[in-house]
Amino acid sequence: MRLNHTEVVTADELDAIHEASVRILEDIGLELLDPEARSIFAHAGAEVDEPTQRVRIGRELIERAMATVPAEFTLHSWNPQRNVHIGGRSLTFGTVGSAPHFIDRQGVRRTGTRQGYQDLLKLAQMLNVIHYIAGYPVEPVDLHPGIRHLEAGWDCLTLTDKGLHCYSLGRQRNVDLLEMTRIARGVDQATLDREPSLITVVNTNSPLRLDGPMAQGIIEFALHGQPVVLTPFTLAGAMAPITLAGAVAQQNAEALAGIALTQLVRPGAPAMYGGFTSNVDMQSGAPAFGTPEYVKTAMLGGQLCRRYGIPYRSSNVCAANALDAQAAYESVFALWGAVMGGCNFLMHGAGWMEGGLHASLDKMILDADLLQMVAAMLDPVVVDAETMPIDTIAEVGPGGHFFGTAHTQARYRDAFYRPLLSDWRNYETWDEAGRPTADQKAHRLADEFLAAYEPPPMDPEIRAELRAFVDRRVAEGGVPTDF
Amino acid sequence: MRLNHTEVVTADELDAIHEASVRILEDIGLELLDPEARSIFAHAGAEVDEPTQRVRIGRELIERAMATVPAEFTLHSWNPQRNVHIGGRSLTFGTVGSAPHFIDRQGVRRTGTRQGYQDLLKLAQMLNVIHYIAGYPVEPVDLHPGIRHLEAGWDCLTLTDKGLHCYSLGRQRNVDLLEMTRIARGVDQATLDREPSLITVVNTNSPLRLDGPMAQGIIEFALHGQPVVLTPFTLAGAMAPITLAGAVAQQNAEALAGIALTQLVRPGAPAMYGGFTSNVDMQSGAPAFGTPEYVKTAMLGGQLCRRYGIPYRSSNVCAANALDAQAAYESVFALWGAVMGGCNFLMHGAGWMEGGLHASLDKMILDADLLQMVAAMLDPVVVDAETMPIDTIAEVGPGGHFFGTAHTQARYRDAFYRPLLSDWRNYETWDEAGRPTADQKAHRLADEFLAAYEPPPMDPEIRAELRAFVDRRVAEGGVPTDF
Repeated sequence: MRLNHTEVVTADELDAIHEASVRILEDIGLELLDPEARSIFAHAGAEVDEPTQRVRIGRELIERAMATVPAEFTLHSWNPQRNVHIGGRSLTFGTVGSAPHFIDRQGVRRTGTRQGYQDLLKLAQMLNVIHYIAGYPVEPVDLHPGIRHLEAGWDCLTLTDKGLHCYSLGRQRNVDLLEMTRIARGVDQATLDREPSLITVVNTNSPLRLDGPMAQGIIEFALHGQPVVLTPFTLAGAMAPITLAGAVAQQNAEALAGIALTQLVRPGAPAMYGGFTSNVDMQSGAPAFGTPEYVKTAMLGGQLCRRYGIPYRSSNVCAANALDAQAAYESVFALWGAVMGGCNFLMHGAGWMEGGLHASLDKMILDADLLQMVAAMLDPVVVDAETMPIDTIAEVGPGGHFFGTAHTQARYRDAFYRPLLSDWRNYETWDEAGRPTADQKAHRLADEFLAAYEPPPMDPEIRAELRAFVDRRVAEGGVPTDF
Repeated sequence: MRLNHTEVVTADELDAIHEASVRILEDIGLELLDPEARSIFAHAGAEVDEPTQRVRIGRELIERAMATVPAEFTLHSWNPQRNVHIGGRSLTFGTVGSAPHFIDRQGVRRTGTRQGYQDLLKLAQMLNVIHYIAGYPVEPVDLHPGIRHLEAGWDCLTLTDKGLHCYSLGRQRNVDLLEMTRIARGVDQATLDREPSLITVVNTNSPLRLDGPMAQGIIEFALHGQPVVLTPFTLAGAMAPITLAGAVAQQNAEALAGIALTQLVRPGAPAMYGGFTSNVDMQSGAPAFGTPEYVKTAMLGGQLCRRYGIPYRSSNVCAANALDAQAAYESVFALWGAVMGGCNFLMHGAGWMEGGLHASLDKMILDADLLQMVAAMLDPVVVDAETMPIDTIAEVGPGGHFFGTAHTQARYRDAFYRPLLSDWRNYETWDEAGRPTADQKAHRLADEFLAAYEPPPMDPEIRAELRAFVDRRVAEGGVPTDF
């Protein structure tokens, strides 16, 4: 991110939002459903009311905790070429995560399957602009929940060599994924505990509640020095105040509380602040994404993160059902907010549709194009004698053209971003070609990329060790479920 | 524009670009095809070579001229409610202008007609986010060129009450349109000469050439204190260097020369700097719009304008043939560049398709939605006790929701922007409704808005006087043409 960030409120207003969130934490507090988390907060000096599970957190505790969050860190993958820097001026992109449905290759919306999940992983592996897999791109519902994390983790680690996400649904799943990541990386436990290698996203149950499995995930990840992305799901008008400043103040209170927990467990554990405040359609109650309100709260979240000096997570979101103009403009507006807001870690960067309810391979192509455009846009404008060729301008002279000049010929191959989708043919040629639209081209490219997919070359011994671990844990029954 | 602008180069780099453009003007110069314009420059101290029509313009002349350009002004309409402020932190939106083709209501691309032109004016009149008519939205080719400006001007002044554009195609057309504007406004000549009421866009014939009719338009408009929008058409790799800094340095040289001419004619005459540098597809030579390169040059143009303290014109452009995802993302990227770059006057804000080769009523609907989203995004986030309702958050408490609170109920009707196009229904409902896409909804809305069109109430006496003028000038044969 080489451009100056967009500041959506003044420094005084930012302070006021911070102060409001401190008041929320001190006066109202959060409901923490996990006894261990409550005990950690109580030990650190928070006011815990056990009967109501309410935890009120003082200003000093928050400030002390925020001071130890690392401003930047490296997220490691088993392929070191895929390591990415998180924080500071870095901007990184992940896939869609957690969609319950996906669009199959015939255009039918279906409940998530392992096959659909694998296809999304394969396409993500083929797209260089995607840096990590930000959750199951679609939930592989045909894998039993008790062993889903094991087989889905196996798929992710073997079909891609990109950074990995783990769902915090109780401690054991995190423990299993941490071990699989350790095996895949071929490192010992001490190295893994030192090197962030696995991300977990923790959503508060807004307003002001953190459930048990999520709290357990925070504790487990912080203990092992793995990054927790604390993301309140504060939809203004539904789970948060209808006014944006209020919704963000509540988002901030919830994020600060969750991030504080990581630091109470292990000061210096990597953590990110997730901004996800959007609005709902007040006529229907439907959540909306990529709205003007979303853009502002995305920028505001970034402003708060710069105040705290911690990495910022935002998202590339839309509410569209079809890969039409709406999908595109909502996504680009979301990117506008995220990028200008200083996002470091873009979740749902590629493939998110329908407010997160379905994942789409075709949308993943469109989004990869959008992300590449963002990256090209952030490439600096080089200003020097070579890029301002007065001699060439003189040589061409009034009324001439630059196509044939040596200056152009030396640069024309890679002077400009070459899009995946944009059709720049003239109307007549485009008309004769059957008037293809961007969604059709995205569909074709998704097929082509999938056909060209090759798995990343994992060391056979490591692969065998990883498979043996998965087989053993599956044989043990994975994680108990109540269904 | 309440947000901080995006600075795409450093202050030193900006100086370097300025210096390069001064060198272009001093060492290479421009070809000015109009003898009067050359004479004006010669009189002001520029070095004029009559045989080659080359004019070399010194640094002092440029700096003196730029110092007298007004930073801000009001653009008047015959309906004072439509007056708009240009410059400073204002951001205003115009229609598409100058498309040779349009898409008719059956979806067929046709050469421009008066009927198509009138429909685009009517829709623009119905859309409040559109502030002025930025040229013929489509060229009414079935009006003879000798009288086209008269009848098309009549249509614009009677079908809309929004600000007006005049094509600088020789002095007489400008004289006619100025008179029609004066009549429509019901003011005397002195008032008109004092109050900007009619815009003309002057494109240089890049590289480094200004033709006769355009120069005549500049002179006529500057004499009457009417705003000239000086917009070089510098496509990097074709009519300008392939490197962005070089293309913008050339854009800057051409713009400074043209704007200097306005000030030599009448110091203090309103003028705007138009940034229109984009790139071409180096494989096909086709112009591209809404690209990452376009975003950067749009921002860079704004940075130059802030250096000079003059109003900035940019555009909402795309190269798409269909109203698909491409049309949307290219447009939003173009808006990203224009808005964050500090655009004051957005040409082609609504209805531009296919790199300007066709105008579209449906796209005008989409763009109106995009512009309204931009406007909503620029509405400030209000930060105060009412927008951060701690009491309401306490009242709702952990796990509750905000729908029913008094705080929400008092605000839900207009808390959020309500889009024209976005379909936020759930997938099942949308599927049952026939899976409508945004382009289909735009088409339906365009029909509905056109059906609901009402002409603005012009004073009958003024209308009669205006018609009499047009009739007389048409009877006189309008303006001579050579065909």
